Amino acid sequence: MSLKKKKYPRESFVSMTELVLPNDTNTLNNLMGGRLMHWMDIVSAIAAQRHSNSIVVTASVDNISFRHPIQLGNVVTLKAKVTRAFNSSMEVRIDVSAENIPQAKKIESNSAYFTFVAVDHNNQPIDVPEVEPETDEERALYDGALRRRQLRLILSGRMKPQEANELKSIFDIKEAQS
Amino acid sequence: MSLKKKKYPRESFVSMTELVLPNDTNTLNNLMGGRLMHWMDIVSAIAAQRHSNSIVVTASVDNISFRHPIQLGNVVTLKAKVTRAFNSSMEVRIDVSAENIPQAKKIESNSAYFTFVAVDHNNQPIDVPEVEPETDEERALYDGALRRRQLRLILSGRMKPQEANELKSIFDIKEAQS
Amino acid sequence: MSLKKKKYPRESFVSMTELVLPNDTNTLNNLMGGRLMHWMDIVSAIAAQRHSNSIVVTASVDNISFRHPIQLGNVVTLKAKVTRAFNSSMEVRIDVSAENIPQAKKIESNSAYFTFVAVDHNNQPIDVPEVEPETDEERALYDGALRRRQLRLILSGRMKPQEANELKSIFDIKEAQS
Amino acid sequence: MSLKKKKYPRESFVSMTELVLPNDTNTLNNLMGGRLMHWMDIVSAIAAQRHSNSIVVTASVDNISFRHPIQLGNVVTLKAKVTRAFNSSMEVRIDVSAENIPQAKKIESNSAYFTFVAVDHNNQPIDVPEVEPETDEERALYDGALRRRQLRLILSGRMKPQEANELKSIFDIKEAQS
Amino acid sequence: MSLKKKKYPRESFVSMTELVLPNDTNTLNNLMGGRLMHWMDIVSAIAAQRHSNSIVVTASVDNISFRHPIQLGNVVTLKAKVTRAFNSSMEVRIDVSAENIPQAKKIESNSAYFTFVAVDHNNQPIDVPEVEPETDEERALYDGALRRRQLRLILSGRMKPQEANELKSIFDIKEAQS
Amino acid sequence: MSLKKKKYPRESFVSMTELVLPNDTNTLNNLMGGRLMHWMDIVSAIAAQRHSNSIVVTASVDNISFRHPIQLGNVVTLKAKVTRAFNSSMEVRIDVSAENIPQAKKIESNSAYFTFVAVDHNNQPIDVPEVEPETDEERALYDGALRRRQLRLILSGRMKPQEANELKSIFDIKEAQS
Repeated sequence: MSLKKKKYPRESFVSMTELVLPNDTNTLNNLMGGRLMHWMDIVSAIAAQRHSNSIVVTASVDNISFRHPIQLGNVVTLKAKVTRAFNSSMEVRIDVSAENIPQAKKIESNSAYFTFVAVDHNNQPIDVPEVEPETDEERALYDGALRRRQLRLILSGRMKPQEANELKSIFDIKEAQS
Repeated sequence: MSLKKKKYPRESFVSMTELVLPNDTNTLNNLMGGRLMHWMDIVSAIAAQRHSNSIVVTASVDNISFRHPIQLGNVVTLKAKVTRAFNSSMEVRIDVSAENIPQAKKIESNSAYFTFVAVDHNNQPIDVPEVEPETDEERALYDGALRRRQLRLILSGRMKPQEANELKSIFDIKEAQS
Repeated sequence: MSLKKKKYPRESFVSMTELVLPNDTNTLNNLMGGRLMHWMDIVSAIAAQRHSNSIVVTASVDNISFRHPIQLGNVVTLKAKVTRAFNSSMEVRIDVSAENIPQAKKIESNSAYFTFVAVDHNNQPIDVPEVEPETDEERALYDGALRRRQLRLILSGRMKPQEANELKSIFDIKEAQS
Repeated sequence: MSLKKKKYPRESFVSMTELVLPNDTNTLNNLMGGRLMHWMDIVSAIAAQRHSNSIVVTASVDNISFRHPIQLGNVVTLKAKVTRAFNSSMEVRIDVSAENIPQAKKIESNSAYFTFVAVDHNNQPIDVPEVEPETDEERALYDGALRRRQLRLILSGRMKPQEANELKSIFDIKEAQS
Repeated sequence: MSLKKKKYPRESFVSMTELVLPNDTNTLNNLMGGRLMHWMDIVSAIAAQRHSNSIVVTASVDNISFRHPIQLGNVVTLKAKVTRAFNSSMEVRIDVSAENIPQAKKIESNSAYFTFVAVDHNNQPIDVPEVEPETDEERALYDGALRRRQLRLILSGRMKPQEANELKSIFDIKEAQS
Repeated sequence: MSLKKKKYPRESFVSMTELVLPNDTNTLNNLMGGRLMHWMDIVSAIAAQRHSNSIVVTASVDNISFRHPIQLGNVVTLKAKVTRAFNSSMEVRIDVSAENIPQAKKIESNSAYFTFVAVDHNNQPIDVPEVEPETDEERALYDGALRRRQLRLILSGRMKPQEANELKSIFDIKEAQS
């Protein structure tokens, strides 16, 4: 009999720091959204690798809002950890902040959810450990993951709305996000 | 008296072609999701620029699903056009396909919605022309834009669910997406 | 009996869009010629791939004039299609335009001819379909390709000038170019 | 009275060395032509800067042939010097070689002529020193520059063929190239 | 009267994570030393910025040993903090580790000391807070910084060996390094 | 009987030229130290390849001082040659200069010593030719290499200080550096 292993969110935690260089910016000297998403994808892929100890591929990205411009020369910090696993897929939450260090200004830029699938060398999905949340925040993220997953499946046409029992609480999703 | 100008979706249409190079790929020689989102951001920003004839900044990205791996050496084609405008913001739909030309294989990879805000040189929002859809497909995208916008506002905590009259048809979103 | 396949120029048509970023520019904030040629090579290689459904390698580049500076933040559009094939080699014409979208200014920047050779995985040349021009412009490009090829062969020391019967009309090349 | 300064070709000589990295190569692991042209543009722009002690912009590129594939891991050496000046424009010759150092194999890859215009900070052309060739090879390049210039002007539609007295010796161009 | 501010090493702590991509590697698919030093410079510059809340420029790099090859696809973690300040200069220690996550292998790769100078917008040095070590390890790094500084000054010809009283304990430097 | 081959320093000489582009610079438009070290690593690796005709890996970097800021648009010249070999390892000296060509200003920026190990395709060290210095400068570099090597070994904890007989002349190292 094989006991299914569990892992804590902190075991997959990754922190990444990037400096905003000229080629990362638009005409207004602000970080381009696409460049930030590129970094988000890398940091969350590493978190998913840490959780699954396997190769991972990006499966989906949830709605992302870009509220504050991030400027040339800013230091961007991205923090990622796995919130919940479903068989071979993992949801990762990423929190992004940006600092103008000489001016000692820091903003919480935005957060996002990326999902990854663990695969073997033939690109076939493989099972991953379950997530065992430890803190209240982690438990809230763990619980919300089910609703977010149903929304994802409906938006990609793989679940019928009437089956999405958890999604009826969609109107609570905004709390889980903030 | 100034008449508000309207523009057709085809006036903002942009087609972009990229070759998948080694640094764009992961350990399995597949295009990384973050790199693809970077290209999506550039092509849709150009579409939004064409519609507004102004500088634009990325405001949000809707849920994106990555269904098929895109491989090293593939040619990726990204097509973008503005579906609808709301004051200073514009929704852009992007369709991505990938080809292995020597093997004559082409896949419809995925589609996505990005929103942009038109700004002046002081980063202040400015109004943009309205969108006048011409074809049935453009009208469907134009109509769906309202529901997608309400979902976006709720997910980012800027609209109360009970006010989202259009969103009650959320369960139809999946049709507009396919 | 195998009938040799023919293809139309429009079957190899490719459109590529690039945004001029800081690292693409020189001290005057103008796009560097070498960066533009890098993009020209990629777009025309894709056109040659589409025509031949094979791997291609750059064989030569004809004289290119850079008339107008292209600036930081401009959107560059490159359009390529195969004009004529000779056994395993293909001539591709590329037309480049540049736009300052916020100012609604567009310039026809320049055009160029690149030639490619179709090869197999051992780097050996393989035959490609012939080109069947459909429009008057395509027929003019098809006819001019012979003169341009003779000039190429002479300039690279692989043809004796006295054998270049078609090249006697070299003084008409400039018309085919404009 | 100001005497017009002259400069020797060796005063503008530049040698540049590049290592072929994965992103510089195509599916066959060969250096892409466009990447090589990008390097050619940089090395020849530096030579033109050295001759003119001013900012320079690329004006044109002559026909280039790519004869031998250059491979991943090869070391590419580019050598450039100004061959002749015409008022504000300079012709630069570039010689490219490639080495597989562990196998002690070196090939003369190809050569090319780029022309540059010296400009001030307002993008206006400014006069440059004349070139004073010292060696036989430099004198041959200096003499050939006139014919190459006439061909360039005809190909870009800025000179009538019948005025190109020097170009009647076009059939000698191939010697000057080798 | 102005009290000179002090800061703890943990206030300048920065953690950076990078994924080794194809272009970062040599012919053996190992991370190139120069690429790693580029990342070391960025992470330590951010630590120096955090300590000084100013712009910083790299002043020197101490001897670095590269003991273990880091491979394509590895995740590299760089941790930096300021060990000691001298007027306008700061010494930063960087520790580098590398992981093959799918194989659950982690190596301590190497460590290094970079020094930075805090400058204003005219590139003039400005004073920075002193460092107040809190832990035993931080105190050992703080003490060793004096010897390392004297070695640096001698190696760059700015201090006479006979004045380097602290350096007589150079033969103890190796302990501080491990 | 196999005679051990010797090589002259000039046989490994490499000159590399780089143009400082926007992404290479910090907030003050100066070249970042890490970018310069990346170039130093490439040029010195090529010199070590030339000496050993084998694949090489970076083993260590000696103390580097950055004295003068190098600016956006400057042309950086890096010159490298092997000074001495020890079994499978080679010391390479790199001299860096920077020019503002339009202003005809040139500075000797800095110099550095990198060491490399020659390896076979299994990453195992292989012997390299000895170095035969020809000029007085080359002999001084050859002699100094022994002291620098002992310092390197002590700093990396692989030699006991009391065994470093040559290092007693460490106080002369500064002369060999200038």
